[in-house]
Amino acid sequence: MVGVSMETKNISRAVIKRLPRYYRYLGELLENNVERISSSALSERMSVTASQIRQDLNHFGGFGQQGYGYNVEYLYTEIGKILGLNDKHSLIIVGAGNLGQALAKSSDFSKNGFELKGIFDIDMDLIGTTISGVEISHMDEMFDFVHDNNIEMAALTIPREHAIKVAHKLVDAGVKGIWNFALTDLDLPKHVKVENVHLSESLMRLSYNVTHTSDM
Amino acid sequence: MVGVSMETKNISRAVIKRLPRYYRYLGELLENNVERISSSALSERMSVTASQIRQDLNHFGGFGQQGYGYNVEYLYTEIGKILGLNDKHSLIIVGAGNLGQALAKSSDFSKNGFELKGIFDIDMDLIGTTISGVEISHMDEMFDFVHDNNIEMAALTIPREHAIKVAHKLVDAGVKGIWNFALTDLDLPKHVKVENVHLSESLMRLSYNVTHTSDM
Repeated sequence: MVGVSMETKNISRAVIKRLPRYYRYLGELLENNVERISSSALSERMSVTASQIRQDLNHFGGFGQQGYGYNVEYLYTEIGKILGLNDKHSLIIVGAGNLGQALAKSSDFSKNGFELKGIFDIDMDLIGTTISGVEISHMDEMFDFVHDNNIEMAALTIPREHAIKVAHKLVDAGVKGIWNFALTDLDLPKHVKVENVHLSESLMRLSYNVTHTSDM
Repeated sequence: MVGVSMETKNISRAVIKRLPRYYRYLGELLENNVERISSSALSERMSVTASQIRQDLNHFGGFGQQGYGYNVEYLYTEIGKILGLNDKHSLIIVGAGNLGQALAKSSDFSKNGFELKGIFDIDMDLIGTTISGVEISHMDEMFDFVHDNNIEMAALTIPREHAIKVAHKLVDAGVKGIWNFALTDLDLPKHVKVENVHLSESLMRLSYNVTHTSDM
């Protein structure tokens, strides 16, 4: 990857977790034609301490200038590069159920450079129909499609009992990242990255927090 | 809340984050009629160190016995209680777009004691139709509905430009927790808990990890 120096490789997971949020805030500033922002102003908007912001952004070579603030567009572009958003990323959706369809219909992804290349399912009623201009194909065609089109990422929105098997098939076909919505852990080779979105676990955390608040 | 002692209040966010995963694994063991499990066997299944597991579970009074392992059902039940899953939780969905519909159709939530009580939207084509047996009502009726029915939680699946205003309305009506899918931060009173699910940020983290892997 071009333009990202060695130091970005040792960034903690916590910082990486915060980067998309910086990217979002900077994008909103850009939309509002804000050219420069100080760490303290950014701090106020984001409810993060100014020192935390300076520390986080220093990981990427410290784009700020003392007393002058950050150049919003530059910082937005650089963080975008670090996140890999300057390149196009090909994506397929495996599982065209409710969630898979919702993802396919979302426009947020294409805005950020993710290109939906295919959708796969086993339901014959769905196969041959299109969502967002992409035709739903049979799962049997998934392996060749991923392989032949060099597909980089797959969103996995199938029931957990099939997820592990399908994930391995995707890896064998050459996928480098899996966006896993299936409620199971995927134990994949190290070179394949997994981002889990376990919605029912998220709702349990909310339940925990709500339950323990009402004690107080 | 009954049955949870003081010590659970000072549990770190990291431990709380792991609890739903313990709950899920223990549930799978129960389904397979496993009665007891050692921390080392659980460790192997979960890819977490045995000492981490002992440390985490000790927060809740240490349900394990030396050389004897954990009683799966007991631990499952206790963690369920800590997560607040022994009580029913009323939930509404605000925004019956693709994602809202996908959530409404999911059966995972009702299994865990979350009861879908209402769905709200402004689209006249949707209002009056039902999803999973729940009728979609107009947003204008949301406030009274939440107030009159003591609704505890709301899933917010509306565009970000309306999210903050609607969230405050929900809080005024008495909601205690918001499951926020809108791509914006909600700055709400402390007694209201927010669990964010920012899907496009999740996809950016996957992009980051995939991009920086391919360097190596």
